[in-house]
Amino acid sequence: MPLHNFHIIESTLREGEQFSTATFTTAQKIEIATLLDQFGVEMLEMTSPCASPRSEADIRAVLAENLNLRVLTHVRCTREDAQRAIDTGVHGVDIVIGTSPQLMTHSHGKDIRQIIDLAADVLSFVREQSPDIILRFSTEDSFRSSEADLMRVYLAIADLGLVNRLGIADTVGVAMPSQVWRLVNQLVRMTGLDIEFHGHNDSGCAIANAAAALEAGATHVDTTVLGLGERNGITPLGGLIARLYTLNRDYVSRYNLPLLPQIDRLIADICQLDIPFSNYITGSSAFTHKAGIHAKGVLADPETYEAINPGDFGLTREISIGHHLTGWNAVR
Amino acid sequence: MPLHNFHIIESTLREGEQFSTATFTTAQKIEIATLLDQFGVEMLEMTSPCASPRSEADIRAVLAENLNLRVLTHVRCTREDAQRAIDTGVHGVDIVIGTSPQLMTHSHGKDIRQIIDLAADVLSFVREQSPDIILRFSTEDSFRSSEADLMRVYLAIADLGLVNRLGIADTVGVAMPSQVWRLVNQLVRMTGLDIEFHGHNDSGCAIANAAAALEAGATHVDTTVLGLGERNGITPLGGLIARLYTLNRDYVSRYNLPLLPQIDRLIADICQLDIPFSNYITGSSAFTHKAGIHAKGVLADPETYEAINPGDFGLTREISIGHHLTGWNAVR
Ligand SMILES: O=C(O)CCC(=O)C(=O)O
Ligand SMILES: O=C(O)CCC(=O)C(=O)O
Ligand SMILES: [Cu+2]
Ligand SMILES: [Cu+2]
Repeated sequence: MPLHNFHIIESTLREGEQFSTATFTTAQKIEIATLLDQFGVEMLEMTSPCASPRSEADIRAVLAENLNLRVLTHVRCTREDAQRAIDTGVHGVDIVIGTSPQLMTHSHGKDIRQIIDLAADVLSFVREQSPDIILRFSTEDSFRSSEADLMRVYLAIADLGLVNRLGIADTVGVAMPSQVWRLVNQLVRMTGLDIEFHGHNDSGCAIANAAAALEAGATHVDTTVLGLGERNGITPLGGLIARLYTLNRDYVSRYNLPLLPQIDRLIADICQLDIPFSNYITGSSAFTHKAGIHAKGVLADPETYEAINPGDFGLTREISIGHHLTGWNAVR
Repeated sequence: MPLHNFHIIESTLREGEQFSTATFTTAQKIEIATLLDQFGVEMLEMTSPCASPRSEADIRAVLAENLNLRVLTHVRCTREDAQRAIDTGVHGVDIVIGTSPQLMTHSHGKDIRQIIDLAADVLSFVREQSPDIILRFSTEDSFRSSEADLMRVYLAIADLGLVNRLGIADTVGVAMPSQVWRLVNQLVRMTGLDIEFHGHNDSGCAIANAAAALEAGATHVDTTVLGLGERNGITPLGGLIARLYTLNRDYVSRYNLPLLPQIDRLIADICQLDIPFSNYITGSSAFTHKAGIHAKGVLADPETYEAINPGDFGLTREISIGHHLTGWNAVR
């Protein structure tokens, strides 16, 4: 398990912007990027410069901050989009094209042969312009694509020797962890390239799928703060941290964990959202113990009923007393 | 995959009562039980009659409603607790005892040999009193227990021929789906008994773990409405439904799906909680499409970017227009 070596691609400023109530001003984007940089995320993905002139200007504004993190932007698989991405001076370009029957029909109308040809053309074009840019190719809706189609596409792209990273995307949130493990494992074995996982949470597996990808050898996971994204969103930053922390605290010790509550709060405030009561680490109930047996155990030793130490995130636990379920055990 | 044959053990009136703000009156318990019965859950788990005289009276009150679902109560592994459970006339008794080093030290002070002897005594006692009661034995904190200890306990209990069901519990929310699969698969192969999974969500895998348990042959999954429970809770009813629906709609077609929004709303209102914006199926954003490519695809065919049809739950989708990300594709 190479779980020490993964990188977080924080996509609040791209996937997160696709959440219904998310609209970030330039100043807010800089504030968010700066805080995520202090937290320690390695990469920041921003909305395509083709979305609007503001999106383009905001990439430049974030780049001008000279943060430690690498700034990526996310574009469709066309020369025009790629050119505009390169023109911003961004560190990396994430190129995506749909490969499922649903997206081939309703998104771009191309078949697998045409997808491969187009991708080869666009990726070569980018590499010519910009020999050092971090270049990623991803299939959209990988888990409703035929496995044979996926392999055709990825093996053709890997063969070009142009990209640094391959991405897989659970675009509609249907994948099971065992499926993610298998696909990532295949790509790691067959291509030797860095592998990125991007997963939506419609069926509640976005965190488990990200963890399965890392176990299978993926190197990059996409997150957003509070999981914001299309529909009910993707793997949340705090949720991924909780998952990796409970596997082994060392996996996340390089991040500035006490900043997490501030990060969740900032995004919630900007988007006028309540942090869900059940949110990972920062939800109001995350460290509340109620039943008497639990309260008693936690008073004796917090690890009795706690896999995560709230103190590591600058938070405190709460023992709820006075309810009939708390009982005499907790308070004697 | 026996995924057609699973049963939901709805524990909002037990695990859910252990959520910080959950306190249900007798009338509310009857209302909740009735609605869950109409939805079609097979079993309802209620707080131990030993917790308070009200808890005891409420079990009798729910039993008096003569619902289709089976009513269970959840007690510690002692003759006294078991006797009080039986005395309520409940259909089933769920008995639990901790087997992890943490719980052996801080919860009950017994070693594995003593746990087995105690369980054998209590289970025999219950079976003598009540030959037909549905009897379940579960280890608490199974995933921080030694695998050898677990096997010793489960094989000894299975050998007695007294219980209908074995339970495993991810009490502090640390299990990975692959671990759950392995343990359930072992128990299915070695005991042939019904297997129940109960999983907390501290590290975001409660839904994936429940699905992995079912794939491995588990027969019962514990849920609560909105996932309410100790700390950030357990597998949510709606989340489990979303997970199984996206695997195969037939797996959940026997449930009255359009009641789900009413169920989530009822519990949120009683507990004075906001339904999380990102909640499965019933969150405000669950069926909102924003980016232009998404909006365009969904207008052409909703399945382009939707794995779940909101109409199946009496809900509607929303296409967010007018934002710079929606773009011309969506509205031309
Ligand atoms: O570019 C990617 O890998 C992911 C694009 C995306 O947001 C998705 O497919 O859900
Ligand atoms: O009885 C059980 O199986 C589960 C008890 C419980 O709530 C837990 O261990 O989290
Ligand atoms: Cu996405
Ligand atoms: Cu529990």
